Amino acid sequence: MTKTTLTIILVEPQLGQNIGAVARAMLNFGLVNLRLVRPRDGWPNPEAIAPAAGADKILENVQVFSSTSAAISDLNRVFATSARSHDMIKSIYTPETAVEALALTAKEDQKVGILFGGERCGLLSEDISLCEALIKIPSNSTFPSLNLAHSVVLIAYEWLVQITSFPPHILRTGKTRLAKRESLHDLFAHLEQELDKSGFLRHKKKRPTMVRNIRNIFQRAHLTEQEIRTLRGIIRSLGAPI
Amino acid sequence: MTKTTLTIILVEPQLGQNIGAVARAMLNFGLVNLRLVRPRDGWPNPEAIAPAAGADKILENVQVFSSTSAAISDLNRVFATSARSHDMIKSIYTPETAVEALALTAKEDQKVGILFGGERCGLLSEDISLCEALIKIPSNSTFPSLNLAHSVVLIAYEWLVQITSFPPHILRTGKTRLAKRESLHDLFAHLEQELDKSGFLRHKKKRPTMVRNIRNIFQRAHLTEQEIRTLRGIIRSLGAPI
Repeated sequence: MTKTTLTIILVEPQLGQNIGAVARAMLNFGLVNLRLVRPRDGWPNPEAIAPAAGADKILENVQVFSSTSAAISDLNRVFATSARSHDMIKSIYTPETAVEALALTAKEDQKVGILFGGERCGLLSEDISLCEALIKIPSNSTFPSLNLAHSVVLIAYEWLVQITSFPPHILRTGKTRLAKRESLHDLFAHLEQELDKSGFLRHKKKRPTMVRNIRNIFQRAHLTEQEIRTLRGIIRSLGAPI
Repeated sequence: MTKTTLTIILVEPQLGQNIGAVARAMLNFGLVNLRLVRPRDGWPNPEAIAPAAGADKILENVQVFSSTSAAISDLNRVFATSARSHDMIKSIYTPETAVEALALTAKEDQKVGILFGGERCGLLSEDISLCEALIKIPSNSTFPSLNLAHSVVLIAYEWLVQITSFPPHILRTGKTRLAKRESLHDLFAHLEQELDKSGFLRHKKKRPTMVRNIRNIFQRAHLTEQEIRTLRGIIRSLGAPI
């Protein structure tokens, strides 16, 4: 677990089930600090255990507060999530840009947090006035109300993406490697030889285009050495005289 | 709802509750096509209704299939989500890059989908072999197993972010506007005059630095005209002789 972390604060959460789902979502993305402000059904809440799916440590270390002000007092920077349009003059971030800003501050050894409202009506304007800015999760304007844990999972995911670097796209080849071009050229020669024999490439005028098209199929497949051996076995098997 | 869409396919989902949560998550981000392959408890499933939280249309239009192959047969491009490392040579995308690739194809009027495995053990290798590539959601390697609906919410969110454009950061000022610089300068003059009178700026040598620091506080606040009027009222109120 990295030292650069984000505190999640749930204000007046109602269902223990959602608190458990939040704990799971947090740990899935490496977050461990969960605070609750006036949880409706008190704390600890046995309803939270099953949906936490093993994120017990998060539940055990939950801190409970009687006010939003107290829950965020030791933090240096706090944003609030809200789907509703509060009548306030306030900076609005996307999850991505909010987490980017907070992560920069957290990397300077300052404590950052994000506030989430309860299931019924989200955050009150008074809570929001204690926060620097709003995070508005992009959503379908005709069905914008997200489940509490779903909101947290999006923020936690953006946080992990922000503070770590993942390859945008890789081809996993395991112990093997992408084939050398030579092996690919040998595959082409083998296949074209067999297709000449079978008569598939008999139209002299069309042959160059057909050959190019067939080669392109296998170019797109990013073949490994082993796969080229498999394909050559297939060609031998299909091309063998009966 | 845009025509450019993404089909979500759940293979052997177990809990109706999760199917409902998936429907809600989908509609939150504008997705409407949900397909199920061999749902454990059959379909329709009354357990799905409450967690769908009003996304009834998604539930009503669910299509059920007896095989993964049948469920994706009309699609042009299908990716599979998986947390586990399958022993396969396969392209691996992040949610962001996967959705980017699929959205480009969808915008060309081709049908795209993403496969999600059941709660217990995810997708089987056979299902994955029917898909072009894998999507690996970045996660905490010591606690990587996401709730099914949480996986879908991340993909659906990335999809909406990809196909629409949201301002990365705005200051909402409602009907009012950011103040003209002139009003800010008048505020500075007013405040500095009162602070000269009160003696706060009495140290001649320190005065220029103190003035600059105070000005910078108000620069960072992005004040509107109304807020400047409020601040000037505060200065008048505090500066008035008792």
